[in-house]
Amino acid sequence: MILRLAIVGFGRVGQEFTRLLLSKREWLLNAMGLDVKILAIADSMKGSLVSENGLDLRRVLGTVESEGTLMSYGQEFTDIPTVGILEHCNADVMVELTSLNIDTGQPAIDHVKTAFEMGMDVITTNKGPIAFAYDKLKAMASAKNVDLRFEGTVMDGTPVFNLVERTLPGCRVEAISGILNSTTNFILGMMERGVTMENALEEAKRLHITEADPSIDIDGWDAAVKIAALANVLMDASTTPKGVEREGIRNISLENIRQTASKGKKVKLVANAERNAGVVKTEVAPKLVGPENAFWCLNGTSSALTLKTDLMGKITIIEDEPTLAQTAYAILSDMFLIAEQNSMNPRWSARK
Amino acid sequence: MILRLAIVGFGRVGQEFTRLLLSKREWLLNAMGLDVKILAIADSMKGSLVSENGLDLRRVLGTVESEGTLMSYGQEFTDIPTVGILEHCNADVMVELTSLNIDTGQPAIDHVKTAFEMGMDVITTNKGPIAFAYDKLKAMASAKNVDLRFEGTVMDGTPVFNLVERTLPGCRVEAISGILNSTTNFILGMMERGVTMENALEEAKRLHITEADPSIDIDGWDAAVKIAALANVLMDASTTPKGVEREGIRNISLENIRQTASKGKKVKLVANAERNAGVVKTEVAPKLVGPENAFWCLNGTSSALTLKTDLMGKITIIEDEPTLAQTAYAILSDMFLIAEQNSMNPRWSARK
Repeated sequence: MILRLAIVGFGRVGQEFTRLLLSKREWLLNAMGLDVKILAIADSMKGSLVSENGLDLRRVLGTVESEGTLMSYGQEFTDIPTVGILEHCNADVMVELTSLNIDTGQPAIDHVKTAFEMGMDVITTNKGPIAFAYDKLKAMASAKNVDLRFEGTVMDGTPVFNLVERTLPGCRVEAISGILNSTTNFILGMMERGVTMENALEEAKRLHITEADPSIDIDGWDAAVKIAALANVLMDASTTPKGVEREGIRNISLENIRQTASKGKKVKLVANAERNAGVVKTEVAPKLVGPENAFWCLNGTSSALTLKTDLMGKITIIEDEPTLAQTAYAILSDMFLIAEQNSMNPRWSARK
Repeated sequence: MILRLAIVGFGRVGQEFTRLLLSKREWLLNAMGLDVKILAIADSMKGSLVSENGLDLRRVLGTVESEGTLMSYGQEFTDIPTVGILEHCNADVMVELTSLNIDTGQPAIDHVKTAFEMGMDVITTNKGPIAFAYDKLKAMASAKNVDLRFEGTVMDGTPVFNLVERTLPGCRVEAISGILNSTTNFILGMMERGVTMENALEEAKRLHITEADPSIDIDGWDAAVKIAALANVLMDASTTPKGVEREGIRNISLENIRQTASKGKKVKLVANAERNAGVVKTEVAPKLVGPENAFWCLNGTSSALTLKTDLMGKITIIEDEPTLAQTAYAILSDMFLIAEQNSMNPRWSARK
């Protein structure tokens, strides 16, 4: 099966995914039966490329790595805006990887809508569309008979949304609890070892594990966006990040951490969603966690999610110290699921 | 869709599953579109029932709860042996719930083969067929175009096999590590609180969480069967429980536990599978676990599995203190997946 992609947003995640496609090309073809082509890359900073027959991935990566932009790639370079590219590139799947705008979820939401209008399936690692506009986008995808996949928005490629959808059939999620922001978990872990928040944050920046604006991590915004996305998809919460009661870790001192440790506890930034009398309440706040809780063992940039369900009780899934490779895998796994679902879809069969 | 089941083995799990079907009948019909009928129940101790139109589940449960056998249910009672029942009951799915014979995996393997011969899909919570004969049964299922599902064999209904099959597409499992036997985890936890192994085992028996022969737990047999099953399915190991290097917890003393605790560690019975130079090595043994490991936090009868994969790194899934309900859900979830897959299968469409 030929799979034609349009990539929107070509930062670290997009480049890592492209490297993955390049290094696994033979395996994708022979073992998975997928001939994956990238027809377009649109990036508001680096410029955009469009090619009817597919871009040369090695050349794309070489260009962006050496120049920081795509301009010198060749005549495929274009200044058509992203929406225009989506309207004309003839791709099967849009891969939306732009950065999150924490206030509105845009422009990712518009990109997703345009892709749907063009009959494309969508994969996104951008939390915005799911945290701010999930109900609308889901209805639109259903009306257009296209697929919207977003495993990478929470805990990278660790199955979270797919876990519920594909392995817990019939289960109703009653409550969600998670350590979803790896930056604050990393910082709190360093503070346990006596490092100040300031210095721990510097170290996190050095390791490229903070958001561009670190207050998005520290003040609990990133975790709030993630719990909103989880609550929308898994609990029909119809909420947005602004509906999340939110407290970050900014006011936690080394002295707080020491006192907590002396009681045999740790401070963790925990995101919760709970259904009470039909209403889903969401919250992000520092919590005391004891050694009987799996969250206790989460080191560094690891993250974890506990689901309380009606039929299957409580299960927890943990992602252990991920790298960029795990985010790239999120996109790959969504791509496989789209290919699997579309292998019997007449819309696709007609094209191939 | 009508789904006709034959249940083989009607102990605690079979009865709990029947209670689940009964309590969820309306929901199964209306929300899931499934009209589930039990056409046959075969049990070597309690006797067997066969009914062309489906048994009355309330009466079945009432009979077995008050009498301990099925004999007084009515004229549906029969002394035809299990294999004969499978050959004549016209069910769509066999649910194999007999107890494990740790030496051979029988008679469950023969039940599965007979069901396949009759064109039935199979759900089993019995580890025997998967630990002793997976390759053969898988090939047979494929040849007969039927499905073999067994989520309940390891960690009850917590997705383990389905996790890899349905949410980690393209991932290769490189290593498996797990706390898979809840009895020994429970006993070791009590020993940490100063209770002797003897007394802890008595408490475990009282709670009905030991195997009929507790040495199957204590000597690591149950964990060995589970890691063999996992390695067969997820790593193509083609092994049996006898190929597992095995050491139980029988020789662990309270003094060992105390010394370990003084070093900040806990003793856990850990099952491992690892691929080295193309060969899968499996092992069950007591290991020292520190607080940086998610296994540290596992209390009581909880269990956990860590998968090391090529594309997705390391993920861990934890089941928190399950009850019999979680085993019953394992069967239900396999049933949903079979129904989903068969909703487009001509063999089924023709029948319904």
